[in-house]
Amino acid sequence: MTHTVDTKNSDGSRRADDAVEAAAIESELDASARVAKKPGAGDSRRASTNDVVVARTDVERLGQYLLGTWADVRLAARELTARPELQRIDGLTLDEHRQRVFGQLKLLVENGQVHRAFPSSLGGEDDHGGNIAGFEELVTADPSLQIKSGVQWGLFGAAVLHLGTAYHHETFLPGIMSLDVPGAFAMTETGHGSDVAAIGTTATYDEATQEFVIHTPFRGAWKDYLGNAAVHGTAAVVFAQLITRDVDHGVHAFYVPLRDETGAFLPGIGGEDDGLKGGLNGIDNGRLHFDQVRIPRQNLLNRYGDVAEDGSYHSVIESPGRRFFTMLGTLVQGRVSLDGASVAAAKIALTIAVTYGNERRQFTAGSDTDEEVLLDYQLHQKRLMPKLATTYAASFAHEQLLTKFDEVFSGASDTDEDRQDLETLAAALKPLSTWHALDTLQEAREACGGAGFLAENRLVGLRADLDVYATFEGDNHVLLQLVAKRLLSDYSRRFAKADFGVLARYAVEQARGRTVNGTGLRSLAQTVADFGSTARSVGQLRDAAAQRQLLTDRVETMVAEVAAKLRPASKLSKKDAADLFNLHQSEIIEAARAHAELLQWEAFTEAIEGASGIAAGLDDGTRVVLTWLRDLFGLGLIEKHLAWYLMNGRLSPKRAQAVGLYTERLSARLRPHAQDLVRAFGYGPEHVRAAIATGAEKARQTEARDYYRAQRESGTAPVSEKAAAKKPAATRA
Amino acid sequence: MTHTVDTKNSDGSRRADDAVEAAAIESELDASARVAKKPGAGDSRRASTNDVVVARTDVERLGQYLLGTWADVRLAARELTARPELQRIDGLTLDEHRQRVFGQLKLLVENGQVHRAFPSSLGGEDDHGGNIAGFEELVTADPSLQIKSGVQWGLFGAAVLHLGTAYHHETFLPGIMSLDVPGAFAMTETGHGSDVAAIGTTATYDEATQEFVIHTPFRGAWKDYLGNAAVHGTAAVVFAQLITRDVDHGVHAFYVPLRDETGAFLPGIGGEDDGLKGGLNGIDNGRLHFDQVRIPRQNLLNRYGDVAEDGSYHSVIESPGRRFFTMLGTLVQGRVSLDGASVAAAKIALTIAVTYGNERRQFTAGSDTDEEVLLDYQLHQKRLMPKLATTYAASFAHEQLLTKFDEVFSGASDTDEDRQDLETLAAALKPLSTWHALDTLQEAREACGGAGFLAENRLVGLRADLDVYATFEGDNHVLLQLVAKRLLSDYSRRFAKADFGVLARYAVEQARGRTVNGTGLRSLAQTVADFGSTARSVGQLRDAAAQRQLLTDRVETMVAEVAAKLRPASKLSKKDAADLFNLHQSEIIEAARAHAELLQWEAFTEAIEGASGIAAGLDDGTRVVLTWLRDLFGLGLIEKHLAWYLMNGRLSPKRAQAVGLYTERLSARLRPHAQDLVRAFGYGPEHVRAAIATGAEKARQTEARDYYRAQRESGTAPVSEKAAAKKPAATRA
Repeated sequence: MTHTVDTKNSDGSRRADDAVEAAAIESELDASARVAKKPGAGDSRRASTNDVVVARTDVERLGQYLLGTWADVRLAARELTARPELQRIDGLTLDEHRQRVFGQLKLLVENGQVHRAFPSSLGGEDDHGGNIAGFEELVTADPSLQIKSGVQWGLFGAAVLHLGTAYHHETFLPGIMSLDVPGAFAMTETGHGSDVAAIGTTATYDEATQEFVIHTPFRGAWKDYLGNAAVHGTAAVVFAQLITRDVDHGVHAFYVPLRDETGAFLPGIGGEDDGLKGGLNGIDNGRLHFDQVRIPRQNLLNRYGDVAEDGSYHSVIESPGRRFFTMLGTLVQGRVSLDGASVAAAKIALTIAVTYGNERRQFTAGSDTDEEVLLDYQLHQKRLMPKLATTYAASFAHEQLLTKFDEVFSGASDTDEDRQDLETLAAALKPLSTWHALDTLQEAREACGGAGFLAENRLVGLRADLDVYATFEGDNHVLLQLVAKRLLSDYSRRFAKADFGVLARYAVEQARGRTVNGTGLRSLAQTVADFGSTARSVGQLRDAAAQRQLLTDRVETMVAEVAAKLRPASKLSKKDAADLFNLHQSEIIEAARAHAELLQWEAFTEAIEGASGIAAGLDDGTRVVLTWLRDLFGLGLIEKHLAWYLMNGRLSPKRAQAVGLYTERLSARLRPHAQDLVRAFGYGPEHVRAAIATGAEKARQTEARDYYRAQRESGTAPVSEKAAAKKPAATRA
Repeated sequence: MTHTVDTKNSDGSRRADDAVEAAAIESELDASARVAKKPGAGDSRRASTNDVVVARTDVERLGQYLLGTWADVRLAARELTARPELQRIDGLTLDEHRQRVFGQLKLLVENGQVHRAFPSSLGGEDDHGGNIAGFEELVTADPSLQIKSGVQWGLFGAAVLHLGTAYHHETFLPGIMSLDVPGAFAMTETGHGSDVAAIGTTATYDEATQEFVIHTPFRGAWKDYLGNAAVHGTAAVVFAQLITRDVDHGVHAFYVPLRDETGAFLPGIGGEDDGLKGGLNGIDNGRLHFDQVRIPRQNLLNRYGDVAEDGSYHSVIESPGRRFFTMLGTLVQGRVSLDGASVAAAKIALTIAVTYGNERRQFTAGSDTDEEVLLDYQLHQKRLMPKLATTYAASFAHEQLLTKFDEVFSGASDTDEDRQDLETLAAALKPLSTWHALDTLQEAREACGGAGFLAENRLVGLRADLDVYATFEGDNHVLLQLVAKRLLSDYSRRFAKADFGVLARYAVEQARGRTVNGTGLRSLAQTVADFGSTARSVGQLRDAAAQRQLLTDRVETMVAEVAAKLRPASKLSKKDAADLFNLHQSEIIEAARAHAELLQWEAFTEAIEGASGIAAGLDDGTRVVLTWLRDLFGLGLIEKHLAWYLMNGRLSPKRAQAVGLYTERLSARLRPHAQDLVRAFGYGPEHVRAAIATGAEKARQTEARDYYRAQRESGTAPVSEKAAAKKPAATRA
């Protein structure tokens, strides 16, 4: 049964194939160094596409580019986070850490770091984008500091600002801004996290006294996981079902004092400490419950719904559902800032791992004396370089999100559509960046071996702190489901009047006009009309249009397929419809993830192709490096989903194999630029603060080398047993 | 350009296809419930394969089965770990935690828990397998306790036992066993972890005084990350280059006293505390360095190499390389016990997440009052059920590893070949199980939302502690590379005399006799002669032979391909050969991973098919459940590597799509058995110790339901705004 083949030939030609393939890829990479010379619009240098550009990174200019629109705010914040008194000290007790971070909040107030988003009439700056940019940078000092200030000013304060009206602003904001009134954001309950609409706490209006009665009807309705609740909070914004005249108007927010000057709970209020957590232990998370606690009618934050003295309810938004989502939507900034902070943490992780990987040596390869630097190993490149590419993609995508956020909240571009787009964009990007940060921190920690496990090298602490980013401010899977619902409703709205069967295949079969996911999120109008369903050459893979085509096609096809599968739901009972949806839940979420990945890819591509501002100022060498990095990101996504492309006939098996080879070569090409690419993140030793990323390892390597060299030169080096065994034999001969 | 097709038909038939596919899968699953009736050899019930067996789990019997050969030892250890004084307390300071764990070590001594592996002449039991089984269970009390006792008796003590001879046993072991002499295992250096052969510490023999001089020549040669080194260790086994008569005989182990009775370092010895770590903070890891420290000649642990008074060196093993690997090989038990402890941690994680997922409700689906239990969501099943399947696979695989370990160390089956097989098996399984534990703990933590982040629910603490398991006792990637090298050398040895080109394709093209990876590791003789290169039906996928074929084929093909690519290395310079190896490093490691996955799959399959002992006693219902679980594991592996199967023509696109559908349905089928499957792990509340896995959530849900029901029944429930708005309209009509 054993097959005998003409082996020399078959074996030889296979290796020849490999070599041809590899050569083709290298030549394509050279080609990309030529076409990457993409000058600004109207620049006549465009003609000379045959010049080979030497790939090199202009670290300073790229660094400036990465700082983005709010560069000055970020630089100011980094000056602050460079101060030891704002930085985390490992090994503090729970109480010490909590007190330290609380004290740091006061330092932030003193330094004017946290009032940017508030009205200028109250001493703020009405600067919404800058405010978030500044907050995000705090993560490098101590994530507890970032999140605790986020609780105070981004949640508690922002709820008063965005859900309250003039009375609340004037009455409550000054104390919140100055930290005289530390407060909790009491939304989540033990029994309800992501499903906010179902919380159990009630706020029942009592006409007789013109008060609301805040009440916790059962244990599951205790407010839980609230920062500032265990110790420091003296007030809270409490979310509760507003009931007046026996009608439940849904979830509204109320300003509720919690503790007196001595720190004791006010009558009717109780709570518990959440105790030690997996991270973020500088924050005093805790539980709260209310036993018929009375607050004045005016403490209802009444921007979107109000109760008159007589108990009648009024709202500017008629639909209870839309009203609820509008209220929640004002709090989107939490997700925006987690997205940015996650990117910052990934940058720190890679700065540490790449620096160490460039210094640390292990195992000799081809020499008896010199060991290889870790980053010269293919596997080490494979572990770190794609993470670097994704971090750049996430960084550029975050800048777009932050810009969108600023446009909406500054009022520059604030329609319902804009708000929905912003929320969907945040819901798409936050899951990817928070998971990416965890994956990157873990890979970096493992890539640094035992040293990575020491607290002094930062990685484990950052990972522990960022762990919860994946589930707070919206569980990542729930957020992706929101995105998917938006994609599906965009899809069906766009084709509401067309025959559905056509539409289910619309995105699959059409060759241009791919605008399915476009509503506000991203215009996918650009497609390649003459691009077939199977990529035909290695070269096509590195073409941006080809990557876009492959990534876009996948999103559109998945959305169309899911839409077709869910179509019968409209004719089913509520229960059966829910079952049908559940039967496709994984696909739905996978479609959302694909969409979010595409958004990151588009942001990266726009950043390279940008023809104005700093982008236009990027030199050709930097553009080559960035283009390779973008290709590594794009082809990495295609590689990750390779089975899909193969099953759906989008890539031939042969082309599919080229994808993996391509990303491997890209990683190798980018390897000499790794250190520059992390230097461009702009974090100095005062932000990185990892013993293994200080050059100490290099110094140790040098000392060891010098020792062995001196030993050899002086003739005092012992000979190896093997050499000693040979010697007499040689002598005999 | 828009394609118009007969939509009703095309849409309709697509859904019909889906339905047919789904029905086919369900029917296959029913079929597996029939054929799963696999009785013991010679059992006449075999005939009645048409009876449908009701899938149900005999928790008690399955639990007994999972306990394995050393069930009694495990149960005794679990009784011990149920005692609060042996359990971790969260939030202790570094010093408190270290002292507590040190105290717990004494309790273990008092309870006779840790001497099983030592000679009966010294009060031990010569029970090697049982010893490891007992150690592994300690992880549920506190991973620091497991690892700290591992350092004392599994590394420090085991080095004296296995590398020393009678003098050392009699002189040093009693103090080690009683913990009178806590000690460090000083192998790793700051500059060298995985590459032990390259350590810098020297032990130079001085004929004049008949002493060895232990010396640290440079900073990179400081011993590092050593448990017991920072505080408690009064002695150490130090690994150093043995130099005598100007010849370096390579790495040997020496018994070196470290501290005096006051805890102060002895002259010439210094050190540093490694400080806080990402986890395992109950262990005092630290650094040591030696400045010309003199120890008696007799302190060389001389089982495999000795120096006579006159400085002449003698060894029973002539080759320095083989001698080195033999010495290291005696310390394989660290890897074995990490494998087992990781499995135990994954079991705890799933017990918590499944229990909570079965109680916690979120979002209504199809009803206005009842929310869904988390585990009823498809995505939640998809997140947890495959992890459950892998945990079972890893558990059965570990039992095989432990048995192999016991056979070798008890001397029952202790050839060079056996030792090599044991080392390769440990190197294959430890990476997979340690990573699996981390992935499972993380998925469980996220699946429990904010509650998962609280220390009181155990998941974050366990994850933090187990993090380093991925890189200590052999970095996972380095271990997989060892496995790959073994696979490659087995491959080339087997075909040493055959023409290589044929052989490169041997495994790919032959239809039977697949024994490539068989050398001692696992006999892959069983193949399906008439099984084509493309699976032809859904039914074939759930056939064990088909799964084995697909998994085996992948390992063999990858090994053969890599071997072909590396073949030119023998004709290249050392440097070029290393470069060639590096160019294929990722593939090499991927082949090893595939091999390890196959080993897990085979272990799972053997556990189901076992015809003797407890396996034979498993009832048919349990066997059905286990078979589904094994299929989920096997098909899950194929799904994970689907791109490979497609690119290499092993699965058609259509069949490939069926794989994903199949694993989804399997998860759904297994969902009702999830609680039983975690109960069978046998960990009680005293081991699980997670607030959310105590039934508290269920009680909260019940209370909330009762509250709403009572409100509805009494007519005091407020009506929703939507309902209130409809009411007047209805009245008007």
